[in-house]
Amino acid sequence: MIVVMKPGATQKQIDHIVELVEQLGLRSHVIVGTERTVVAALGEKRDGAKQALELGEGVEKVVPILAPYKMASTEVKKDRTVVSARKLTIGGRAVGVIAGPCSVESRSQILEIAHFVREAGASGLRGGAFKPRTSPYSFQGLKEKGLELLAEARAETGLAVVTEVMSPEQVPLVSRYADVLQVGARNMQNYPLLEAVGEAGLPVLLKRGPSATIDEFLLAAEYILKAGNTQVMLCERGIRTFEDHTRFTLPLATVPYLHAHTHLPVVVDPSHGTGKAALVSAMARAAVAAGADGLMIEVHPDPEKALSDGYQALTEPAFKELMASCRRVAAAVDRSL
Amino acid sequence: MIVVMKPGATQKQIDHIVELVEQLGLRSHVIVGTERTVVAALGEKRDGAKQALELGEGVEKVVPILAPYKMASTEVKKDRTVVSARKLTIGGRAVGVIAGPCSVESRSQILEIAHFVREAGASGLRGGAFKPRTSPYSFQGLKEKGLELLAEARAETGLAVVTEVMSPEQVPLVSRYADVLQVGARNMQNYPLLEAVGEAGLPVLLKRGPSATIDEFLLAAEYILKAGNTQVMLCERGIRTFEDHTRFTLPLATVPYLHAHTHLPVVVDPSHGTGKAALVSAMARAAVAAGADGLMIEVHPDPEKALSDGYQALTEPAFKELMASCRRVAAAVDRSL
Amino acid sequence: MIVVMKPGATQKQIDHIVELVEQLGLRSHVIVGTERTVVAALGEKRDGAKQALELGEGVEKVVPILAPYKMASTEVKKDRTVVSARKLTIGGRAVGVIAGPCSVESRSQILEIAHFVREAGASGLRGGAFKPRTSPYSFQGLKEKGLELLAEARAETGLAVVTEVMSPEQVPLVSRYADVLQVGARNMQNYPLLEAVGEAGLPVLLKRGPSATIDEFLLAAEYILKAGNTQVMLCERGIRTFEDHTRFTLPLATVPYLHAHTHLPVVVDPSHGTGKAALVSAMARAAVAAGADGLMIEVHPDPEKALSDGYQALTEPAFKELMASCRRVAAAVDRSL
Amino acid sequence: MIVVMKPGATQKQIDHIVELVEQLGLRSHVIVGTERTVVAALGEKRDGAKQALELGEGVEKVVPILAPYKMASTEVKKDRTVVSARKLTIGGRAVGVIAGPCSVESRSQILEIAHFVREAGASGLRGGAFKPRTSPYSFQGLKEKGLELLAEARAETGLAVVTEVMSPEQVPLVSRYADVLQVGARNMQNYPLLEAVGEAGLPVLLKRGPSATIDEFLLAAEYILKAGNTQVMLCERGIRTFEDHTRFTLPLATVPYLHAHTHLPVVVDPSHGTGKAALVSAMARAAVAAGADGLMIEVHPDPEKALSDGYQALTEPAFKELMASCRRVAAAVDRSL
Repeated sequence: MIVVMKPGATQKQIDHIVELVEQLGLRSHVIVGTERTVVAALGEKRDGAKQALELGEGVEKVVPILAPYKMASTEVKKDRTVVSARKLTIGGRAVGVIAGPCSVESRSQILEIAHFVREAGASGLRGGAFKPRTSPYSFQGLKEKGLELLAEARAETGLAVVTEVMSPEQVPLVSRYADVLQVGARNMQNYPLLEAVGEAGLPVLLKRGPSATIDEFLLAAEYILKAGNTQVMLCERGIRTFEDHTRFTLPLATVPYLHAHTHLPVVVDPSHGTGKAALVSAMARAAVAAGADGLMIEVHPDPEKALSDGYQALTEPAFKELMASCRRVAAAVDRSL
Repeated sequence: MIVVMKPGATQKQIDHIVELVEQLGLRSHVIVGTERTVVAALGEKRDGAKQALELGEGVEKVVPILAPYKMASTEVKKDRTVVSARKLTIGGRAVGVIAGPCSVESRSQILEIAHFVREAGASGLRGGAFKPRTSPYSFQGLKEKGLELLAEARAETGLAVVTEVMSPEQVPLVSRYADVLQVGARNMQNYPLLEAVGEAGLPVLLKRGPSATIDEFLLAAEYILKAGNTQVMLCERGIRTFEDHTRFTLPLATVPYLHAHTHLPVVVDPSHGTGKAALVSAMARAAVAAGADGLMIEVHPDPEKALSDGYQALTEPAFKELMASCRRVAAAVDRSL
Repeated sequence: MIVVMKPGATQKQIDHIVELVEQLGLRSHVIVGTERTVVAALGEKRDGAKQALELGEGVEKVVPILAPYKMASTEVKKDRTVVSARKLTIGGRAVGVIAGPCSVESRSQILEIAHFVREAGASGLRGGAFKPRTSPYSFQGLKEKGLELLAEARAETGLAVVTEVMSPEQVPLVSRYADVLQVGARNMQNYPLLEAVGEAGLPVLLKRGPSATIDEFLLAAEYILKAGNTQVMLCERGIRTFEDHTRFTLPLATVPYLHAHTHLPVVVDPSHGTGKAALVSAMARAAVAAGADGLMIEVHPDPEKALSDGYQALTEPAFKELMASCRRVAAAVDRSL
Repeated sequence: MIVVMKPGATQKQIDHIVELVEQLGLRSHVIVGTERTVVAALGEKRDGAKQALELGEGVEKVVPILAPYKMASTEVKKDRTVVSARKLTIGGRAVGVIAGPCSVESRSQILEIAHFVREAGASGLRGGAFKPRTSPYSFQGLKEKGLELLAEARAETGLAVVTEVMSPEQVPLVSRYADVLQVGARNMQNYPLLEAVGEAGLPVLLKRGPSATIDEFLLAAEYILKAGNTQVMLCERGIRTFEDHTRFTLPLATVPYLHAHTHLPVVVDPSHGTGKAALVSAMARAAVAAGADGLMIEVHPDPEKALSDGYQALTEPAFKELMASCRRVAAAVDRSL
């Protein structure tokens, strides 16, 4: 850390900071500039050190040097993580596609979609059984019945089932049916849940919270990694901004940035990221061009009748076209799909 | 709802929307304008109706008319809710103050602060026993030991204990010690938790998520109300914006806006809302002037040594001054403190 | 417009709104719902009508139906606008590339870059002569001397010169040298400037302001169109959000959204949109995949020595690679580059 | 500046940075840490230095130490600036109030309001003659006629006229009539305009741009100060965020933050800051409690009939109540109004 003193900081204040740095088990180094003095604090970063120093009298600001995450960092692990579950592989040369409805609604619905998306080239099946909904009056999912239907769809198609788990106590139940546990955007900082999925032994798809910085996102992943689970996929699904023509703003620069800072693979969800079916296909292509390792797409046989989020679901023909066009873009960036 | 058709919408498309409106159990009403046709859909709002209509061919947009929350609304309950727990009353003429450290760190720390803030005029004691922390490497709280210390501080001072609960399974344990269950900003949309505190029988302090709209905030409260718990306080603690000179942006217009739209009382937390001790007192006064029903303030006997969030904690003398100055502002708006 | 009355609105209040609607020259239509009454106001939209109605007693909100822009809208002009200036064509099947340094710094610098980017396939040359800089202490550009150097570079290469104009009185001077007048993001709502470039007779590249909604962006374009200039390109260059790992957040969903709502062509600037040289190439590919009609890229022979914005400029070899990879992506979406 | 090297940076890369630092006329100081090396660059900050260093190979980031503004800083000028124009004083113990309509609409309108607000205690009269409007189809102001009417209102009331100037060439004309030149939020980074008002010899009210950071805001003020004009007021009028229940988000923590970092006085505009008449009075009180040196309030005799922004204007009785309640809050923070 670098402790920047205020312009008129006294020698006594500087000495106090040096002392504090050493009490924190760090090595100090004072640099006297023309206008200000700076104290460098060297050594392993300790929790609380930054804030203790910030409160020192005469201190203007404290600048951290190290990234706050470790196990997720490319500094710690150079080779890229590849996550696998049945047919689904995310992080290799091929771009993996997870597709399906927002919610599992009925046996016929999920079986029809599963067959369709598999034919079109998807290798993962999404579908909510436990649905976090903004309103308590909205459809909350078929719960265990939904999980059973997902398992049946898997048995018929071989697709990996990716489904959301909303609380630590649901983890054992959902783990009996799922191939990948999804942690939703609203739960990105639900730490008991992160620890529970970290111990669950299944791959995890972690969605970025709509107001999470990249450091916060990687620290959430760090909770899972620290609990012993290295099979983590990061999913960019849009952030909340002032823009009102899309449901969220999908910031694709996240993809190359994450590739430079973490070894974990990156999935993009243009369905939530735009909230408008008409924009999904263009943003899926853009995600592939930006280097995404996977796509997560909502598909529904009859979006008008969907029990949730129909406005962002693609029809089956539209999904087929998306796959065809993304395949061409993938080839143009030396990937397959 | 109002369904706005695109300029060139065909009669067939309009007829389809009318049919869809009626299938949804709503009454339709077609208005033909000079450039566009609009279909009004009248009757009780049904979940899914908006999105089904949005997908209709020829539809440009669907505009909801009713607020999505019900039990939290002043339309449903006119008289203001007053929440009480021991000495603490929030929602009456007096502005209630909840003060204390970010985390319970030790017996001597919490007892000292409890006595101090009570002397200074607080009626609630805050203090984290289970701490949600962005980094898994940060101090996570004393857990049950922390709860015991809070209870001891209450026994000595009579202050109401306000402490965070992070998951449904913690609710029974925390409820044995707390007077008010706090749902943190990161958990505002943790629905299993909202339902669990809704059933717990204790007052709840619900913090606004940093990227939650007011409608989402009130819908989160609605989950608690719907589960049978009417003792809910809303807490504005800052939103995430592009501003970088404060930790969050504290939007005080929330206070009069909420007063017009909900009967639930509104608490403001200027400690998290600014993230800088030097700004807390001015924003506490501003909150009182804007009509806040309560304040939540971080206080620490030695912020430099705090195990969490010391940079935003007030020293005891600074808290005493805050109370004195807020008391004068409260009187100027016909409140007491 | 749709005027939504409050739940308990009186008949007198409703009558007043009906009267107001008719005074405004609109046709009224009252719809009585189970909980609320709604008054539709039909006819041409008049400025001030919405706000007058919003203030009516008993009114909850007023919902506009029509988009506020006209001449920029696909409703008014169906065929897509193609903007041309010398070698540069934006809006056709080929993706046009405008490249060059942030600022013109010297004769040798601009001539070297111009030849290089032309060889690599660019058809426009960017380069600031008048530079809007956040700090008054930063390099402000070579001014007229810079324009002369741009003209010399054009004479040697045939590239179209795209350069910024910062105030109405600069328009005549800059027009003597430029092929395309650029209105910078900070000036997107500088209305005297928009009117001046609207009358200038040269194509205009209008950059989106970092906090402008799409409607505001299109209304800014409308100022130029209304002044009689139809050769307008829209440039997405990133918005300001809470994200701190990039300089701005580049929201590529703007591209397909604008294509659906306006006939004007869309250029993407990934240099400003990310503010980091390492992210530019991936985002350029993503922009092409999303359907961008043009790219605007900063290139500098020695970014370390650039007088402005070097951190986001590509070296010449990096630009050459960008062009090669974007050409492949363009082909994958049936465009050329 | 502090140059943080990447973990594996080579000695050659470090040497290159040291050399670069010295070429930039700065003194270098190398600190070897356990994981990384840091190079401090000491001396006067030079434009371009930061970005040159950022591009060095092996560099992770460059952290500036000094604030980028100088003349606006409390480091350079300790005593607070007081701005005066006729009856209006901003920056002293008394809170100055500038009130009036959004636009000057007619002689009777502006004279009536001027008398009314003066009676109620305002000392400045606001009123737009040149109106920047989002839509080219909206009322653009009475222009010179409006200025004449403002001057007439001043002659009758003694109020200081505060009115907007939109471009450098308008400065001479507007200066003939105005007492304070207002630079609007959309023009905060219109540098030719900032320089022109900096040379104009009249006090300036500079509004914060809706996506400007505080550093950018103070650098805009720096343009005016650098041109020789020290009579600058800063006006917080709300920022653009994801919030949709208010027109902008009014971040009052700006007030105490600016007081700590600049000697310039701070005015708050709760009319634009909320965009809703019903919220203005509470936020005006909050602004005074937070320490604002001035208030800027929109008042209209008949907001329903206003030609612009009527939805945020107070009626005359509402303004009178606002003044009475703010006067009480001002007294509670040892100010008058």
